[in-house]
Amino acid sequence: MSRYRLLLAYDGTSFCGWQQQPHGNSVQQAISAALHKILAGEAVRLLAAGRTDKGVHAEGQVAVLSSTRVLNTAQVQRSLNALLAPAICVRACTAVPENFHPIYAARAKVYRYRIRNTAQHHPFTHAYEWHMPRPLDLSAMRRAAQQLVGRHDFTSFCAADSAARHKVRTLQELRIEQDAAVIELWFTGDGFLKQMVRTMTGTLVAIGLGHKLDCTHILQRRTRPAAAATAPARGLTLMQVIY
Amino acid sequence: MSRYRLLLAYDGTSFCGWQQQPHGNSVQQAISAALHKILAGEAVRLLAAGRTDKGVHAEGQVAVLSSTRVLNTAQVQRSLNALLAPAICVRACTAVPENFHPIYAARAKVYRYRIRNTAQHHPFTHAYEWHMPRPLDLSAMRRAAQQLVGRHDFTSFCAADSAARHKVRTLQELRIEQDAAVIELWFTGDGFLKQMVRTMTGTLVAIGLGHKLDCTHILQRRTRPAAAATAPARGLTLMQVIY
Repeated sequence: MSRYRLLLAYDGTSFCGWQQQPHGNSVQQAISAALHKILAGEAVRLLAAGRTDKGVHAEGQVAVLSSTRVLNTAQVQRSLNALLAPAICVRACTAVPENFHPIYAARAKVYRYRIRNTAQHHPFTHAYEWHMPRPLDLSAMRRAAQQLVGRHDFTSFCAADSAARHKVRTLQELRIEQDAAVIELWFTGDGFLKQMVRTMTGTLVAIGLGHKLDCTHILQRRTRPAAAATAPARGLTLMQVIY
Repeated sequence: MSRYRLLLAYDGTSFCGWQQQPHGNSVQQAISAALHKILAGEAVRLLAAGRTDKGVHAEGQVAVLSSTRVLNTAQVQRSLNALLAPAICVRACTAVPENFHPIYAARAKVYRYRIRNTAQHHPFTHAYEWHMPRPLDLSAMRRAAQQLVGRHDFTSFCAADSAARHKVRTLQELRIEQDAAVIELWFTGDGFLKQMVRTMTGTLVAIGLGHKLDCTHILQRRTRPAAAATAPARGLTLMQVIY
């Protein structure tokens, strides 16, 4: 078998997420169907570095494709981009060693959460931002963010229906940037639990709005209700998988 | 009658344009229907500074609303934004004198045409850009752009089915900017004919791709076939109406 790494960008708005679902329109299904055509019916196995949830976007998702044939990578990229709708773009296609595993080989992932902090939303970017018209206290958010950085049990920030057995993860960095009306939260970590980035974001925004929440205390409680509401999927983008 | 000026942003992708059509989904219809609800059935007349074509966007369209009542402008803005889909945003609503006319009072309009000059398109911004994978000679485009600036008969850059009787317009400025892979053409003029900005863009891009076209000569010929193909609507945005 030969292996190929696809670097993918996609607008998750109209997808049920990365993962194939029996009755859903998944990114995995869309790409697999296109590959199936390109490879003349060969059964295609496509494995991604991270399962993005329904409505979550990507600029740097990584997926691995295994094939019994040796492929022309430039041609595969061109053919995929010609077949796929504009919501998905194959940014690169490269050959990787046969033992390359997109999940186990990943050292870290980088997610960006974007908030538009203005009275009105913007029609062009609304699908990629959480529109928050009330003012946010960025200093309070930055102080709270620092309490989340490090190696912790993130049970409080993980969806209650998560199948993960171990919930200790290392959040290497949580940076909050502001460019005019757009606030970005950048998360770098060795792994993220189900809805973890969105629940950290929802909690930090609650703190920015003046709610008296203590992230150290929330972590210690190890129960999802300790944290605030999960932020909407639309603002989240998987930016990079670091190998 | 009292008059109000609406400052509008919209994503034109799924609209048939600004202007109401018998079987179309126009921006004008969407806003009129929302106003009809807010004003409890009052017949609403809505007049815009410029009719944007099917698929063309706006960040600074201006429309005037006349009503028999005195309205609370903040409330009208809030109610409209609550009723309208996220593709339309009322950025401001202000009272204007009863004789204010959005078309005749306009001194100039500013349009932006955006091109993504990279091998791959970007899924997040694809609806607002013309994706052009081949390299463009910006110096040649800038030289040609200067030949279009000034007072000219723009018949060669006007859709053949235009109803305009006089086709002399003044193009005050045509600026070409580049920020990494994104090229922007900024047009400021006292008035624009049907598809004029998109036909100037298509012609400048043809020149950027190496076609030997002379804009002075194209202007002199005063016939649409003298210019190159019209650029796609998706890249065009009405940025500002100057009063």
